[in-house]
Amino acid sequence: MRVTVHEVGPRDGLQNETVVLPLEAKLEFIESLVASGLTDIEVTSFVKPRWVPQLADAVELVKHLPDAPGVTWWALVPNRVGMERALEAGIPAIATFMSSSETHNKKNINRTIRESLAAQREVIATAVAEGLQVRAYLSTVFGCPYEGDVSPERVVALSQALLEAGAQTISLGDTTGMANPKQVRELLGLLDSSGIGPERFALHMHDTRGAALANVLAGLDCGVRIFDASVAGLGGCPYAPGASGNLATEDLVHVLQAMGWSTNATLEGVSDAGLVASELLGKELPGRYHRYHMGTCSKQGAQNAS
Amino acid sequence: MRVTVHEVGPRDGLQNETVVLPLEAKLEFIESLVASGLTDIEVTSFVKPRWVPQLADAVELVKHLPDAPGVTWWALVPNRVGMERALEAGIPAIATFMSSSETHNKKNINRTIRESLAAQREVIATAVAEGLQVRAYLSTVFGCPYEGDVSPERVVALSQALLEAGAQTISLGDTTGMANPKQVRELLGLLDSSGIGPERFALHMHDTRGAALANVLAGLDCGVRIFDASVAGLGGCPYAPGASGNLATEDLVHVLQAMGWSTNATLEGVSDAGLVASELLGKELPGRYHRYHMGTCSKQGAQNAS
Repeated sequence: MRVTVHEVGPRDGLQNETVVLPLEAKLEFIESLVASGLTDIEVTSFVKPRWVPQLADAVELVKHLPDAPGVTWWALVPNRVGMERALEAGIPAIATFMSSSETHNKKNINRTIRESLAAQREVIATAVAEGLQVRAYLSTVFGCPYEGDVSPERVVALSQALLEAGAQTISLGDTTGMANPKQVRELLGLLDSSGIGPERFALHMHDTRGAALANVLAGLDCGVRIFDASVAGLGGCPYAPGASGNLATEDLVHVLQAMGWSTNATLEGVSDAGLVASELLGKELPGRYHRYHMGTCSKQGAQNAS
Repeated sequence: MRVTVHEVGPRDGLQNETVVLPLEAKLEFIESLVASGLTDIEVTSFVKPRWVPQLADAVELVKHLPDAPGVTWWALVPNRVGMERALEAGIPAIATFMSSSETHNKKNINRTIRESLAAQREVIATAVAEGLQVRAYLSTVFGCPYEGDVSPERVVALSQALLEAGAQTISLGDTTGMANPKQVRELLGLLDSSGIGPERFALHMHDTRGAALANVLAGLDCGVRIFDASVAGLGGCPYAPGASGNLATEDLVHVLQAMGWSTNATLEGVSDAGLVASELLGKELPGRYHRYHMGTCSKQGAQNAS
């Protein structure tokens, strides 16, 4: 009865914020995440600094990460050049990424799916040879903002290919929050009946349309035990101002604990980390529990619910 | 495969906003809800105007409601005096309310549960004799902000009492968003095995901790077919600034339709109504789909999701 939260706030969260945090601020944020008990923290990305200036300090950041026994640091790696920077920095675990939609992959990575898969195979082989942990993000698996429906059979085929390439886990991404719980059950069912059980998957659900938590709980029912989230729902949707990004870690941890699951983070700890993120960025963040927590912090004892 | 959304924006939404909308603005908002196809709209409350100044114009509002064939107008009625005002105004459907937690009932209504139940019986009997539809809100059934856990057996007993009194539907309220899907299934299971099937219930879930949609979908699995919601998530939590109130109608309609259910509202219609509410109140509202919709409206065609 244990669930692992894979915290993506410092990477997927910060890369979608317009404010670029200085290294010290990032480290303060990361320290607060460690204090919450989180064991898997995705801290940065080795994509071209020009593409994501928010994370341009990736090598420097990894070199300054705190000593945190039991914590696995993750970083996004797009290609061979990124892999070289990751190895130089000394990150112990990497995440590769590609899309299951041809158009989204082309627009996001400027490659065909075939080209991406070849590049992934090379990066994953290098990482495995170096003894790194590897997860592979497969995005837009529940729908593509350009193409609409994405073939579940293609998701099966790409998942098989990425596992064969050596990835230990596939993180199925609902990149623009198009999934619904019925679809989550159907896709995981198809994957399972194709020989890829839920223990090989994480779910990376965005809350663009408000269904992220419901989708995650459908995945939980199907046996998935790793879920990606960012504290306070850090990381909006770049093309819809005000829209939500990742599922908020607090909302996830709250409901899991209420349902009797144990997690790798305390609710108090991730709530505090969400406050740290909000203060460092100087803005309100969308997570529900986060906002409730902020409200009760600022008005302790004032209760007149109706 | 049909679900009824009971729209509470004009009542439960507006009563928790600090801005008091003038009558004309409320009517504009209500017209937009009617245009979406919604068939059940809770428009106001006949509590003492001093308690809820936002809805002090209840009688006037009901007299000016548009001619909308197929729409049932609902209003909250707390007691005999409120019932008299409701009859004077000519509302066709009423909602009574009480809490399943002694402390919450005392703080909210200044009565014991026993006193409330006696008052409800009288109001419901009058309403039924006048040929009105009646739903009874039973709040804090999934937890009380003062007492913590609420006995499921008490919820069974109070539901039975309210149905025997003549209420046609009980709306189970998660007043401060403390519920989780496991608990929803357990409570509805207990009610069902106590002889009160899911067709007698609506769910009224607040999104304070982000679990409202997941809780509603658990109720859907258990056979509940009426869900309360407010467009754009209108209506925050009065003691936690920034915290969410009702489940957002758009988020609910989106996921229901995506899962193949038909509803009494179009997604486009409720999205437009959410924009009307946001403009009239002059503030951002918390609904996820609402914010996504706003973003895509203001930046049509600009897509670079990653």
